[in-house]
This record gives sequence, structure tokens and C-alpha cells, in this order.
Amino acid sequence: MDTFGTYFRVTTFGESHGNAVGAVIDGCPSGLTIASTRIDNELRRRREGDPAAAHLTTSRKETDKVEWMSGVLPSSDKENGDSSKKNDSDGKVNETFITLGTPLAFVIRNHNARSKDYAALQNLLRPGHGDYTWLMKHGIRDHRGGGRSSARITAAWVVAGSVAKQLLEQKGITIAAKGKYIADDNSQSDTIGGEVACQCLGVPAGWGEPYASSLKARLAQAMMCIPSAISFEMGIGKEATQMLGSEYIDRWNESQYDPSCGRLRLTTITNHCGGVQGGISNGMPIVFTVGFHPIVTLPTPIVCADTESGKLQEITIGGRHDRCQIPRAVVIVEAMAAITLADFALQNQS
Amino acid sequence: MDTFGTYFRVTTFGESHGNAVGAVIDGCPSGLTIASTRIDNELRRRREGDPAAAHLTTSRKETDKVEWMSGVLPSSDKENGDSSKKNDSDGKVNETFITLGTPLAFVIRNHNARSKDYAALQNLLRPGHGDYTWLMKHGIRDHRGGGRSSARITAAWVVAGSVAKQLLEQKGITIAAKGKYIADDNSQSDTIGGEVACQCLGVPAGWGEPYASSLKARLAQAMMCIPSAISFEMGIGKEATQMLGSEYIDRWNESQYDPSCGRLRLTTITNHCGGVQGGISNGMPIVFTVGFHPIVTLPTPIVCADTESGKLQEITIGGRHDRCQIPRAVVIVEAMAAITLADFALQNQS
Amino acid sequence: MDTFGTYFRVTTFGESHGNAVGAVIDGCPSGLTIASTRIDNELRRRREGDPAAAHLTTSRKETDKVEWMSGVLPSSDKENGDSSKKNDSDGKVNETFITLGTPLAFVIRNHNARSKDYAALQNLLRPGHGDYTWLMKHGIRDHRGGGRSSARITAAWVVAGSVAKQLLEQKGITIAAKGKYIADDNSQSDTIGGEVACQCLGVPAGWGEPYASSLKARLAQAMMCIPSAISFEMGIGKEATQMLGSEYIDRWNESQYDPSCGRLRLTTITNHCGGVQGGISNGMPIVFTVGFHPIVTLPTPIVCADTESGKLQEITIGGRHDRCQIPRAVVIVEAMAAITLADFALQNQS
Amino acid sequence: MDTFGTYFRVTTFGESHGNAVGAVIDGCPSGLTIASTRIDNELRRRREGDPAAAHLTTSRKETDKVEWMSGVLPSSDKENGDSSKKNDSDGKVNETFITLGTPLAFVIRNHNARSKDYAALQNLLRPGHGDYTWLMKHGIRDHRGGGRSSARITAAWVVAGSVAKQLLEQKGITIAAKGKYIADDNSQSDTIGGEVACQCLGVPAGWGEPYASSLKARLAQAMMCIPSAISFEMGIGKEATQMLGSEYIDRWNESQYDPSCGRLRLTTITNHCGGVQGGISNGMPIVFTVGFHPIVTLPTPIVCADTESGKLQEITIGGRHDRCQIPRAVVIVEAMAAITLADFALQNQS
Repeated sequence: MDTFGTYFRVTTFGESHGNAVGAVIDGCPSGLTIASTRIDNELRRRREGDPAAAHLTTSRKETDKVEWMSGVLPSSDKENGDSSKKNDSDGKVNETFITLGTPLAFVIRNHNARSKDYAALQNLLRPGHGDYTWLMKHGIRDHRGGGRSSARITAAWVVAGSVAKQLLEQKGITIAAKGKYIADDNSQSDTIGGEVACQCLGVPAGWGEPYASSLKARLAQAMMCIPSAISFEMGIGKEATQMLGSEYIDRWNESQYDPSCGRLRLTTITNHCGGVQGGISNGMPIVFTVGFHPIVTLPTPIVCADTESGKLQEITIGGRHDRCQIPRAVVIVEAMAAITLADFALQNQS
Repeated sequence: MDTFGTYFRVTTFGESHGNAVGAVIDGCPSGLTIASTRIDNELRRRREGDPAAAHLTTSRKETDKVEWMSGVLPSSDKENGDSSKKNDSDGKVNETFITLGTPLAFVIRNHNARSKDYAALQNLLRPGHGDYTWLMKHGIRDHRGGGRSSARITAAWVVAGSVAKQLLEQKGITIAAKGKYIADDNSQSDTIGGEVACQCLGVPAGWGEPYASSLKARLAQAMMCIPSAISFEMGIGKEATQMLGSEYIDRWNESQYDPSCGRLRLTTITNHCGGVQGGISNGMPIVFTVGFHPIVTLPTPIVCADTESGKLQEITIGGRHDRCQIPRAVVIVEAMAAITLADFALQNQS
Repeated sequence: MDTFGTYFRVTTFGESHGNAVGAVIDGCPSGLTIASTRIDNELRRRREGDPAAAHLTTSRKETDKVEWMSGVLPSSDKENGDSSKKNDSDGKVNETFITLGTPLAFVIRNHNARSKDYAALQNLLRPGHGDYTWLMKHGIRDHRGGGRSSARITAAWVVAGSVAKQLLEQKGITIAAKGKYIADDNSQSDTIGGEVACQCLGVPAGWGEPYASSLKARLAQAMMCIPSAISFEMGIGKEATQMLGSEYIDRWNESQYDPSCGRLRLTTITNHCGGVQGGISNGMPIVFTVGFHPIVTLPTPIVCADTESGKLQEITIGGRHDRCQIPRAVVIVEAMAAITLADFALQNQS
Repeated sequence: MDTFGTYFRVTTFGESHGNAVGAVIDGCPSGLTIASTRIDNELRRRREGDPAAAHLTTSRKETDKVEWMSGVLPSSDKENGDSSKKNDSDGKVNETFITLGTPLAFVIRNHNARSKDYAALQNLLRPGHGDYTWLMKHGIRDHRGGGRSSARITAAWVVAGSVAKQLLEQKGITIAAKGKYIADDNSQSDTIGGEVACQCLGVPAGWGEPYASSLKARLAQAMMCIPSAISFEMGIGKEATQMLGSEYIDRWNESQYDPSCGRLRLTTITNHCGGVQGGISNGMPIVFTVGFHPIVTLPTPIVCADTESGKLQEITIGGRHDRCQIPRAVVIVEAMAAITLADFALQNQS
């Protein structure tokens, strides 16, 4: 099931070397103004990564053009009543558009799909990738560039995440992730991993539930969906396992009745728990960290297994590849956090 | 939404000091034989914790009696056709029973609910607990013993998990967790946390999906639902963030066509990824670790906030409480893993 | 999947001759006051049917006692802060109770389950019932009184429906069904069917969606779940298939801007469509009719098939049975309408 | 929520005058061979209607070109290993393609969207349509051609339905609907309604559940989603409400153990229930009828309400419109039946 969420539902599709990747966003309220430049900017962050870490990522000339198929109306149409004004032929909408309340669908076409580069891999199963598991599951596999398992698919998340962010911002919620740790780059001929930390500001107290829909559980699920994610830590995370209870516990600040909301508003001195208690947000910043293992597409020769015989065979994967995913992962972590929080936002809007 | 799963659906209910906790298990296939002694044994593991760590848990005399309301028939009835034979008055069934294919519902009554112990907390919000978040969410709160947020609710998970385990065992899948780490007990007057490691054997290659239903994502969600869980690590976990790609990558063993399944079966030399690649199981053991922060019910005085004024007030929580949840958490981790895997088992049974 | 709804989720369980029937209601908001006498009254309507049609139903001495397991607090506890006050031993709560926002679970125990009456049916498949289909599906069958297929299960719907009704009434929505047609009772030794018409007042314009969550589609689903339901008609129903468009179309009343809601409010002269246009409520009464085939438990001998050999065998079903389900079906139609509308109410509460 | 199904999930999108309509089909198994000519043929049936009733429908020159975005591979690619072979630029695939097990996404672009025709309707709410309800729901409306409420959207259902049909045919299941009744065409200047009857052959006994996932309830839901559908009848339908039980009951044929399936297989002499008993298929043909009210776009002047003032105003809708939807509805009924049954097929495939 490739759907995230119950209220803000994002259903993704696409393989890395098929015609396109994209998604349907169902449940997005009507009347939301979306800036397409915001979306394009997020896609650029995903494509280029953090400029400060440019040595870790490859330069790609590709651009990702978002084609909207449904669910939006260019703002100009709505304002001036010029209903005959049509989106131009490739579906590009004006700088801002407005949601209709119907499902939003978009596609991002795959360009320059140099499938020939992957011909050598047709009968080989790379170590560390999903090649073998996909074959075992489906008995058929699009070997070109990872198929459905490719990180290419995260482009659709980033678009949906950008819509979610703009929805959340109207409620005063902002999300910002950053590279927290990148492993020592002691070798130019190897790949490395690292960690991304994320902070969500403005989430009101009261989102989530103690169990199956726990906010921390839903964030964990969203983050562990990301390719290469290998650990999830809420708040202070694993460090808490070594603390005493009296050190860990988040103490209350002296507080008082808040006339603006008609009830008590409490804050804590520390935020070890990361803003979620009993599965429910407590009004403090939502804080978590995602760990990523090193990229499994190595620049050095790797030993693959033949799909038929199982025989091992050493090959070198051609092309230039990233050596670390952290610079690009930052915006993906933000997108998944936004998609997750938008779902809770709609559930708690009353 | 207090439901886990799409195919093997577990909907839990109950508050710690209401009449009962329990669950409905919907989607469990018919004809499954369940040993009630197995369930009782799992409940005892949850109640008493690991005997080797008895000094960390309190002794409780309570027993958890599972009353089946629907979905099962005592095996004897089926075998000897004695349909007049009735469950005895309290719903206790014979040693083994058989599932009908209808929703299984059970309750575990709450005994000795000494609500008076909690009267002092009626207008106080403890630090570290879900008291405040619950109040902000619902505007009403059952303050007695944590209400819905109480770890008492995990008893229902353990029962559902035991049913799931017995379903999985028929497919050759076993699950075993253990305490991996307990923090230094340098203080008898404080609480501590730790880690639980879990290993699932026999899961075939091909369960899961790359994205929203990724096996690692679903396990992360299930584990982070557990009260006090603060980190989730797949396979080698966070350590992978510091490795080089050439160290991390799980290399293939030389393999061959497996006549028993009519296709290739590959194994890896290491299992750093924990048995999941591209979100899909690869046939190796499923391995993960869950970190728990220290118990937030401290034996020492704590500073609570008044629900109306927000004024802080120091109190000491009465009664004996556990100092570490690891001894009890082991069986809960297993239960949640079993519930998660049973869902994938039914999805992939064809 | 025995769950209705996405926001107001009702998961039912139980077999007619197991220990109990019941349900979990998940998603019900906190702070809702529920009168248990209202629930008991609805159960009596289901049990006894319309007094005016008493000759069509059997008299049953049984009472249905609703035991609440979770999710509610007696109102008195909340008001006087007497948290030590406990529900009495059988879980009966005081006259009114208040919802906690947690899943509401209840059971209704099955009494006087005279399973012996059904012993003769153990190896026989009745015509017209679900005996054969259930056996084909599950390979195992609780032959006692219909098992899970028994109309007994509708008692749980009626309780959940009563909670839903009380939720809806707070929003000004009322639901009333009545027998619209009962077939000619030309034979005292046969069974008959009929129709139930239902009207829902106060549903605001704007509930529903054009397609998969169409309000008329969801009502149709809910009604066709009812045992013996064989037709569903929205508004004027089948008669519309014979009308001209100019006759059928619901014309607007002259209307005006409504200051109370800040926008236009339109009504129609006729209500042929039954209050739903484009899958969405239009503010007019929601009107529909459900047809029921005759009861398939005949008072005369029936020819059953042997479960093993398929050989036919004539038997007479013992006991007294209803001759028409319309008198009892009225409250069941209301309950299912209420459960359906409560789901839309929560979805549209913002 | 614009998603049908739990296992074979169809999420649709699109407005009549946006860029495209389409859908994502999630859960479709890998390795299914799909003939695109079959899909094109179904779309032609929808577009042109039954040739025998050509006087009731308008001739449209438009063609519906299905562009596949993901989830499929041209068969030739798979067979000859020519992985470099690319779909042509507009996404048209070869005559047959094969599913990858990933979500299938497709779009059908809207052509000749003469939005100007609808300019007059921008501030008018037509009677009988979803104009008013949509405005009440969303506060914004794409007035061009019905927007999301347009029957245009059913093109996406037809494509998804064709995929579902081809999946079902591999299991020996075929679906055929036909116009059962068209109202007397006593006026060339009015619109008329009618009924579509549908029969599904080859559905094995055992699909469905007694309650929330009842096969008859799910079919009712699917059919009542279709624009203009106003009644649903299972089997003999409403006529059953006037029968005696002894007339209605479907009697068993003498039967015997079926060696091919290893168990008893029963058939009934009549099929009044339409192949579903206790919510579960019984192996007989699945039979149901859907009633449609007359088309609400009248060729004669209609009285609309102004969106701001509510003032009524008579206008004539330009353009040629169908006078009866039955000729086109036939393939839509089949498509929705196929989508519904495919969901049960995947659920019951083990």
C-alpha cells in the first residue's frame, strides 16, 4: 500500500526509469494557496543537496518539472473570472494556484533515462540494494536504476511535502531539518552515512494518540520509509537509555492560565522527550533524528549474484554517484515530517 | 485510531482503572488452533518480567484472566460434536481453542483498582507523563493510574501478540526478544532505562514494500507505540552511520538455485541491514533494537503542575513502582513484532 | 473487515451462541454525554419490534444488558470528583455517562443459548441462509443459530447507533425510520418481507463526496449490510427511472443570503433526489428506502443439504420465529444511518 | 476519500475541465498481462454508448488516450530483454504490457475543453446537479462542465475496471451488463432514465463477509457512486419484498462432493438472492440491477439560482447533450463491478 495518511492521504507512484513519478494528494482542503516556486525550490534542494557539501553529491543538469493534472486552479483564473484561461500545454500553472478540494494529482516526467547504462545489471543482483528482495516478491523486476526502489521516487514526496508545509504554515507550523552528523570522509573512494536532525515548531499540544496513532510512532514510520534510513530517535533519543529518571524527566516551567486559548499552557525546562508525551504532542518543539547508513552504490567494484545461477560476479557500476545522502536527505526528512503532521492537522482541525 | 494492521487488524481498548482492557482481532484466519496456556504464559512474562532482573520490578499478585467474547470455539466442541458444551460462566475456554474466522474479542478485567491512591493526582499534572497532553487533547482525563496512557493497556497487546505468534509459528516464524542493555543501577532511588533487541527467524524473502508499507517502517511504528520507547534501530542501527559503505554492505554468500522453492535463494555474509532491503524482507533474520528512556514515575518527590492554575507543587507518588521497564518490555516488543509480521503474513499468503 | 467508518469507527464482534456480541467505537469525541436509558430503549425496540405489528414477531423474555468495558466515566464521578466511586460489579453505569475520548467498548452477553435446539442442524445446510457460504469461506462453522451471520449481531449496531444518534442530536440531526410497506399477510404459515423508509433531518449541506465516499453510496453500503436487505432506493428511488427529466428535477425555491451562516442557503420544491446531489448532502432531508426479502427461516418444512454428501433432507426448524423482519428492522435501519452520518459529522466538524 | 478497495485500491483524480482525469491502481499483482486494445475498446463503449441506442446519445469525436505513467512494462521489453526500448514520447505502450507489482498510474488528458461554453454558468447553480452542494462543501467550485462531479471522471473508472476485468478473467470470472429498461421516449425534448442489469459469472463461493464487508453491500456502494444512480437491487430485488418466504427461498439442487475442489459444491434451482447469502458469494451468478434517474441536464430552459443573491434566473444550457445515460452506463456498471470484485479476489487469493 503506497498511501500515507488517513486524512491528508498521499499515494505515490513511479519507477526511476518509467515515464514519470508522481502522487495523488487526497483530502487537501479547498482554498489553500500554493506557491509553485516554493515547490520548485524544494525540488532543487533535493536535487542539488546542501551547497556546503557539494563535494559529496554529483552535479545533475536535470530539472524536475511538476505537471499538475488535477485539483488546482491558477489563482488568476479565480480572481479575474477568466475561466477560459487554460493552463498551458504542458500543465505548468502560474506562480500561485489554489486548491479545489478535489484530489491533487501531479507527475514529474523522467528525463534522460539512460537505461542502457543499466543493461549490464539485467541479470545481476547487487548487494545492499533491493534487487533481490524485489525479485523474490514480484518475480519480475525493472532493473533500470532501482525501479520502484530508487530514491528517484522521493521527488514525489518532496512535492507533496511542500504542499503539506504550505498547509501547515497557515497554522503557524514550520519544519526545518539539517545535517547533524556526516561520517568522517577518510576515503575518497568509499561512501559514508550520517544523521539528519529535524525540528517542528508550532505544533499545538494535543495531536496524536497513545497507541497505534502515536505521533512519535507515525513519525518513526514516515522516517523509516526513507531509503537508507536505519535509525530513528525521538528527542534526546538513544542517549536517554543511559540516563537516570531524575536526569531525563522534563520538568515543568512555572506557568499560568493562558487567556488566548482559554486554558492552561505548560512548557518544560528541558525537552528530552522531543515534544511528545503519551504519544501526544505537548506544545514544545517536535524534535527527532534519523540515521542513514552509507550509500550502498559503491564507487569500487562490487560482487553481484546472477539472477538465475546465483553465481557471484564482480562488476563496477558506471556513472557518477553520490558518496553521501545526507545533503539531499534533509529536504526529504522535512517532506515526510510535513506529510505526517498535515495528517494530524486535518484530524485535529475542529 | 487504535487499530494496527490492514489484514490482521488489532483494535485495542481500555483504561487502567476502567472495567477492563481488551481488543478485537479481525482478519485472523479460521481453523487456527490456539493454546490458552501460551497466552497465559506470555501475560505472566509481562506481569513478572525477567526473573533475573526481579530487583527492578515490583511483585504483583494480580493475575490477568483472558475472557473470550467471540471468534473461538473450544477444540473439544469441534472434535466431539458436543455443541451443547458451553464455555464456563466466566468465559474461560479449555486448554486449546480454534478460531472461527470471525472477529476474536477478549477482555481482561481490571482488579484491585485502588483508585483512591490516585485521588491526590486528580488536579495535578505529573512531569514526563501524558497527563497534560491528554488533557489538552480531550479536555477530560481519567487521572486514575494513567488512564488510557497506562502501560496496563499493553496486556491486550500481549494477548493479541500471542495469537499472532501462534499464527506465525505455523508458517515457521519465531520471534525472540531480550534485554540488550540496562543502564547502570548506580542509585537505588532512581529509575533507569535500557534497550531490547529482537530477532525474528523464518520470515521469507518478499514481505514488505519500498515505501509506505516498508517492513522496517512498520516495525518502527509498532515499536515506537510502546510507552517509553525512544529509539528504534534496524539491524546494526546507528553504528552504521559511522561506517564506510564498503564495511557496511552485506555481501552475498555463493549460492545456488534452490529446488525446494523453484528459485534462487541468496543469503548474506553479514546482516547489517537487519534482514530488510528496499523495505522488503530478504530471508535473513529480521533484527532490530528498541531503546527505552527511564521510567518517569520516580520514587523521589516530583514537581507537578496544577490543572487549573498551573502552580507547581511537589508531591511523592505512593505505592511501589518498577525502577526499569526492560524486564517487562521484552514480551511487549515480541508482541508488537508478532502483530506486525502477522499482518504481512496474511498479505503475502498467496 | 468488520469495521464501519473512518472517523467514527465501529468494529463489531460476536456470534449468536458465543459468549457475547459487542463492539468497539473508536473516534468518538470526548465529553459527549450519553444516556443509557436511551440505549436500553433502542435495544427494546429491536427486541420487541413495533407493538402495532406484534403478531409478526415472537415474544422474547430476554433482555440485553450493555456492559461497558472502556471509554466512559459515570457522569457523577466527573461532577463530584468522587473518583473512588466504581462502576458496580457487572459494569452497569449510572443513568448518564460521559465519553473520555478513548475507544468505547461494550459487550452484551448471550443468554439462554439453547444450542441443543440447533444440534439437528450441525451437518445440514439450510436453503436461503449463509450456512453454505460460510462453510465455503472458512471451512468451519458455528452452526448454532446462524453464528456470526445471525441477526443477533445487530444488537451491537443498535447500541453503537444509539451513541451515534446522541452525538448527532447535539448537532441538531435526528433520524427516524418506519415500516413503509409490509407484504400482504395472506398466509399464517409463511413469512413475508417489506420496506423500511428512513428520513434524516438537520444534515447540513456539504457532507459527502462525489465518488468513493458519496453519501448515497455510503448509506447504500450501510443498509445493504443488514441481513435480508435486498434493495436500496435513494429519494424517490426506482420510480425516478420512469420519469422525464423535467418531472424529476428538483427545482429551487426562491432564496436569499442567510446571515446566520454567512452564505446562501437554498432549498428545493421537491426532494426527489433524497437530499444528496453529486454525492453530497444539499441541506434537504436525507430520504431513502430499504427493501427486505421475506425471512428465510420458514415455519414449514425446508429441504437442507448434508454438509458431507450434499444429499437433500427435509426438516422442520423448531422454535418460534418471526414471520416478518420489518417491525424489528426499523431501529436497525436508524442505527446504521446514524453510524454512517456520525462518520461524516466528524469528518466535517471543522 | 477517493479510493475504492482495500487490496485492489483505485484512487481517482481529475476534473472535467482540468488537465486530465486518471487514477492510481495500487495492489495489482505483478506479472499480469494487460491488452491495451481491451482498454481502448471499453473506453469507446463508454464514449459512444450502445450503437443500438445511438439516438439517445450525442456523437463525440474525442478519443481518450490512456497515458501510463508507471507500473507497467511493454511485454516486448520483457521478452526480448531490450531494456533500452523506451515507451514512445506520449507514453503509449505496445499492444500488451505487463504489470510490475508497483502502483499503476495513468492519465487521460482532457481535450477540447471549451470552457467558454460554461462561462454563463460561473455564477449560477443549476437545479439537479452538484453545483450547490459542491459550493457548500468547499466554498470554491470549478464550474466548468461539472468539475469533479462530471461524468467525465468515469473514464478513469473504465480504465481501472478494464485492468480489473483482465485480472478477474485469469480467474475465470466474467462480467456483463446491459440496458434492462429505458423509459418511454415520449418526448424528444426531455431526458429519460432507466435500469442497467449486471451479471458476474464464475465468482467462487466464499467471497465476502456478513457485515461491513458484505459482498452485496460493497456492490451497492460501488454502484451508488455512479452519477445518477438512484436505486440498487440485489438479485430479484424489490420484487422480493412482495413475495412469500416459500416463494422467495432459493432451493438446493441435489448435489454431490466435487472431486475437483475437494469439497461439496451446491447450486440452487432459482437465484432470487443474486448469488450472495449472508453477505458471501454462493457460487451462483452474481446478479444485480442499478436504476438511474433521468439526466438532469435538460434540453429545455432551466431555472438556476445565483451563487451570491440566490435569485432565480432561467437559462438554456447550450451544446448537445445525451438524453439518456443508460447506453453509456452499461460499461461503467461493469467497471465498478470489476473493481469491487478484484478487491475480493485479492483478499481471497490464498
